[in-house]
Parts: sequence; structure tokens; C-alpha cells
Amino acid sequence: MSRINALAEIAPIEGGGNCRLALTDEDMHGRNLVVDWMRDCNLEISIDAVGNIIGIWNVGSGAPVMSGSHIDTVRTGGRFDGCYGVLAALEVIETCQQAGVTPTRPLAVGIFTDEEGARFAPDMLGSLVYVGGMPLEEALDVIAIDGAKLGDELVRIGYSGVAPCPGLVPHAFVELHIEQGPMLEANGVRIGAVTSVQGISWQEVKIMGQSNHAGTTPMSLRHDPALVAAEITVFIRQLAKEMGGDQVCTVGKIDIHPNLTNVVAAKATITLDVRNTDEELLKLAESKIANYLQVVASAEGVKITTRELARFEPVVFDDRVIDCVEKIAKDQGNSVQRMPSGAGHDAQMLARVCPSGMIFVPSVKGISHNPAEFTETVDLIAGANILLHTMLSLTTLEATN
Amino acid sequence: MSRINALAEIAPIEGGGNCRLALTDEDMHGRNLVVDWMRDCNLEISIDAVGNIIGIWNVGSGAPVMSGSHIDTVRTGGRFDGCYGVLAALEVIETCQQAGVTPTRPLAVGIFTDEEGARFAPDMLGSLVYVGGMPLEEALDVIAIDGAKLGDELVRIGYSGVAPCPGLVPHAFVELHIEQGPMLEANGVRIGAVTSVQGISWQEVKIMGQSNHAGTTPMSLRHDPALVAAEITVFIRQLAKEMGGDQVCTVGKIDIHPNLTNVVAAKATITLDVRNTDEELLKLAESKIANYLQVVASAEGVKITTRELARFEPVVFDDRVIDCVEKIAKDQGNSVQRMPSGAGHDAQMLARVCPSGMIFVPSVKGISHNPAEFTETVDLIAGANILLHTMLSLTTLEATN
Repeated sequence: MSRINALAEIAPIEGGGNCRLALTDEDMHGRNLVVDWMRDCNLEISIDAVGNIIGIWNVGSGAPVMSGSHIDTVRTGGRFDGCYGVLAALEVIETCQQAGVTPTRPLAVGIFTDEEGARFAPDMLGSLVYVGGMPLEEALDVIAIDGAKLGDELVRIGYSGVAPCPGLVPHAFVELHIEQGPMLEANGVRIGAVTSVQGISWQEVKIMGQSNHAGTTPMSLRHDPALVAAEITVFIRQLAKEMGGDQVCTVGKIDIHPNLTNVVAAKATITLDVRNTDEELLKLAESKIANYLQVVASAEGVKITTRELARFEPVVFDDRVIDCVEKIAKDQGNSVQRMPSGAGHDAQMLARVCPSGMIFVPSVKGISHNPAEFTETVDLIAGANILLHTMLSLTTLEATN
Repeated sequence: MSRINALAEIAPIEGGGNCRLALTDEDMHGRNLVVDWMRDCNLEISIDAVGNIIGIWNVGSGAPVMSGSHIDTVRTGGRFDGCYGVLAALEVIETCQQAGVTPTRPLAVGIFTDEEGARFAPDMLGSLVYVGGMPLEEALDVIAIDGAKLGDELVRIGYSGVAPCPGLVPHAFVELHIEQGPMLEANGVRIGAVTSVQGISWQEVKIMGQSNHAGTTPMSLRHDPALVAAEITVFIRQLAKEMGGDQVCTVGKIDIHPNLTNVVAAKATITLDVRNTDEELLKLAESKIANYLQVVASAEGVKITTRELARFEPVVFDDRVIDCVEKIAKDQGNSVQRMPSGAGHDAQMLARVCPSGMIFVPSVKGISHNPAEFTETVDLIAGANILLHTMLSLTTLEATN
């Protein structure tokens, strides 16, 4: 708890949250603090070419059981998202050290670069590169929303490391995270044994219209990209409602140019965030959106272009890791449920290379990406204890072929 | 034409237009150039406390017949909007001087501050203060979209003058302007004798919702201000369509916070631009919008507050000025039609204190507030000739009681 609170003192924002966008000075200060704590625990620290930080407690033999998450935030982030998972993993190692428990394999904690994707798209960029899912060169060339280049920013804040990328393959990976949604609280359940992660489709939609005078241009002669942006925003809400189930659709970003009261806009750019746990349904949503874009462009006489910002298929976690989390949670006297994750997490990337899973604890009112994000201390402690025993248990997981 | 082109060389933008937002350095350079030209014509120049510039050719006796307009632009302005009226009025005076024609009254040309309202709301601020429609102190305290204070910016660019405000009441006022709409071109008519100006209602709508994670928050639990902003934008387009006639409605400005792809927004701010030539219909539109805001706020569970940015009733011009414009246009062999103005203009403010009217020339494709704004030279010349004879004719207009 004291480490969570100390990290939250770096780049605080009104309301109790943080703004540490990836690879900013604020992110650097956060990294420096957590790396200091890793050193205090005598971890071997390696930093790779995309800025991922891996701290290894080098005991026993073989590949490590790894946990970890991220410490970058969205612009209006809470103090638990990501940070909780990183600091709980560190706590697990420190607890073992202090209790004289020596696992048969190394234990490791990872801090993955740019999980949020709030400054550099796509999200989960660091863990994606870590598992070889994106070429390093491509990642280093990614341009931030503020125009900076990812590779340049890594060098600037001193986190362009020499460890190989793709990185060390763990024996198993388990990530502890706040739910960021309302389901556990609504069900009165303390622990989620995460079975899968929703597929994510992010696209940018650029709408080019005809800028004109808002007073003199008859409604019938308009080609208004702000209107079309609004129509698309309304459409995808309706689409999510019609599809039901796990389907969620969001427009969180709208930029209008020239953005003046008395000028029919010249162009509008919006981003669509579309997710489903079922790949076929996600594809269906994408196809319905693509059709609608054609219809609406033609109706208003505007030109629409789209650009994929991120696309991840739904991920299913390893049954043995899910079983392990569920059993340990129950053994420790917690209520537990199996559930999918609505958010993307670094664990879904690690799942490409090793048996992986996640542990969720409740988010009060389901609020996240918001300074009001909160999880009860008793739940945070329960989650960390389950992480401890899960990591130790996974050291004896049989290697898969 | 050479003066129009020279003024357009100050703060040019891609595509041939200009960006000279009110009281910026760019506006200052534009003002300096036109004031130099006024001096070349031996006009007496006075600058008032809100930066309005009046150049008087002090001949004859009594109050002057005044023309004029503005030289500030929107962010993506054309080269004719406003500037044409100012420079044509200067041309009228110079032409009389060169031809040895001495009117029985002074002729004057006015450059009114911040007509566009693109940096400081409301629009037509300078002419509004000129006629005593807004207290000077209030005007000087207006804050720009970039945070600057109007009074400070006037001092900074050297246009905080000592002439009294409200200013000299003209004997009559006539403004020459591009139509900024498509009607003249569509009707194949060269000259518009403007009968009235649409009433304008500008309001800012602020929507406060619940920021949250775009992946984990079920659709049914969202309080999404970006969605509500979109719904309002779609609604007012529909409203304009249903009301028909002169009614126009525009959302040209949308600001989302925090404006990130994977975050359900915390708040959204939009502006509504609603106009009608009929005050009762304008009120009806405002009331329908107010009702809708309540409905949509309740449906999505967001809080909506509104703030009036500008509200001007429709203005009817003086019949004698309208008749005069129409007759002179016909006498000079032009096609002419009576028409309302869709845009607001300084002349509507001057109409509060003296007989006023306007002359329109066609805008190609109706395009304005856009670098592609264009009017044929032959039309510009026709308009200036009509302005010349209208100003001279108005010197003999009988004083109203």
C-alpha cells in the first residue's frame, strides 16, 4: 500500500489519480522509483530496446515464473490500473525473500512499455514487441499524439536498453489487475479468475467535407463532417445495443477542424473502439460499421478514409493457470468467479509464448481510467496473496511442448 | 483589386485564404496596412477604445454617410469576406477625390473590431459596442479562446484608442459584402439588395458524464458525454430539416475530454449556431433544443449546462436604403433581387442608430469561411460602383426624427 501511494505521488492530477503518459518525463520518474525498489529487493534488472523492464530474482533454475503489468497511465488515470500488478509482484518476491522461501525457479516482475496506448498506438505495445508480435524497428518509429517518435523518447528518458527483444520466454505468466469494470462488485465476488480477453478493434475515421459559413449555407447544400462524425458516434452506440452480449463500442476521441462555432467544419477525425470476446462477432461489428460509413458518406457527400490503429483477436488463457488461480482463491477463503476481461492486458501478449492467466480484484462502481478509480485495501491484499501462491504453484507447472 | 490582393498577402494560408483572427499580430499587420491606405487618401483617422477604426473624408457638413465592414477573418478565412467592403468604401472616397466630386456631407469608412467572433465571442463585437449595445468595460473583459483578454490584446497591438465609444452616429450606413451563400449564383443574379439579417442564437452546451474504461464498462451502465454531444448534433440537423424555410442549425465546434480512444469521455463541450430571419421561429427552435437537452440528459444520465454566447434578433433594414440600392443597381444595368442575409454583419448593428442597408455580390458556389471563397472581378467592380452611387445618394437622405 505504501508503494502504491508513493508511486501515485508522481504526476498526480486533481481527484487523486495520475497522468503518466508513456515515455514522458512523468513516466520516467515513475520508472526510476520502481526500479529503485527492484534494486532494494536485489533483483537483476534488464531493460530491452523498447523500454520493457524485467527484474529477476535469480534463484533455482530454468525459466522464471513471471508476473507484472505496466505503470504508464491514461491522461486521467487512477492509481491502481497496472501499478497494482507490478507492485504486488514485487511484494510477492520480497515476501518470499523475507520468509526464507526459495522457489525452484526464478521469479520475475515485468514493467511493460506503453500498455495504455494513450500516447503511442497500439496499446500493449511493449508486451507485443516483447513476445515478437511487432518488429522492434516498427515500434521505435511509432509517432505519439504529440508528434514525438517512440524511439527518440526512449533515448531521451534513458530507457532504451540493450536486453534482446523479443525477450526471455517465461515458464508461465500471471498478471494481477483491478477489474476496471463493475461485474465483481455487482455479483458480490472478490476474485475473478480471468478466462479470456476481449478482441479489440481500434480504427481512426477521417471525414473530409466542405467548410462553409454556418449562417448562409442552406441545410440541403451542406457536406458537414462534424455531423457525420456525430452520426457515426450515434450509430455505433446503437450497434452495440443491437448486438448485445459482450459487444462494446466507444467513440472517445473527436477532433473537428477548424472547430469554430460559425463554420461548417472542413474535416473531422474520430476513433472507434470496438470489442468482443468472440472473433466472429467482432468481425461482424467491423463489417456493419464499414457498411454504415459508406452509406453515411454518400448521404452527406463527404469523403471518409479509415486507418487501423490496433487489432487484436480475443485471447483464451491457459486452463491450468485459470484452474490454479481459482483453486488458490477458494482455498484462501475468497469468493471467486470465472470471467472474461473487457480490457486488454499485457498477459494477453505473454499468452502467445507461455501459459498465462490473470487475477482480477473488484473496482468500486466499476470506475477506471478516472481519478476516482478505487479498490478496497482488503481486496488488494487478497489479490496479492493469491498472486503469491499462484506464482509459487506455477513454478511446478509441467512444461508444454 | 490590388489592395484586396495586397491585404491577402498578410497571414496567408494554404489554398489562398487568410488567418487574421481578431487582435492577433496578423490582424495588427492588416490594420496597419489599411490605415496607411486611409492616410494616403487624407482621411481623418480615429480609433476608439474597442479598436474600431473610422476614417473620415471631412467635406461638406453634418454627419457622414458611412460604409465599411471588417478585416479580421475566421481561422480558415477567404480574402473577400469583410475586406472587400472596407476596401471598396475606401475606393469610393478615392474615386470621388480623383473625379473632383465633393459630396455635401462627409463620407466615412469604418473597420469594426472582431466581426467574426472566431477569437472573441460574440461576433460583431466592435460594431455592437460602437452603437452602445454592449458596455465598453464588458467588451474589454471578454476572454479569447486562447485565454487572452480583449482589452490587453488591444493595448498589445496598439489599437486601444481614445475616440469616444459609443461612436459618432452616421447620417446613414451601407455595407458592401460578398453574399457568402449560394442564392445569387443559383438565381443568376448579380446584386442582392439586402432586406434583413437573420437572428442569431449561439450557445455553448457543456455535458458532464462519467469517464470510464471503454473495454470494461457495459453499454447499459454508461454516462457518455461524447455520445450525447453527437446526439445533439444529429438532433439539430434534423430540427433544421423539419422546420425548413430559413432555419439553419450548425455544430461547428466539439471538444471532448480527455479525448482518448479507449476512455469513455468525462465531458464534452459543443457550440450550437442557430439562425432564422423570423424571431418567433428562432425562439421556437431554441425552445425545442432546450427540451431535447433535458430529454437526452435524462436518458443517458449526464448533466448538461448551457451558456448563451450571442443572441441577436433578426434585423430589418431601412426601406429607403433598400430602395436606393435596388434602383441604383438596376440603373447601372445589373440584375438585382431583394434577399435576407444569412450571415450576421456590422450593418445590422449600425441599423440600431441610423438608416442602414447592405449590398451583396455573388459568392462562387456559395463558399465562404474557406480559402476557396471567390467572387468574380466583374461582380466586385459592379458592387463597388453601386456602393459609390448609393453613398452619394444617401448624403441627401432626409434625416429621420
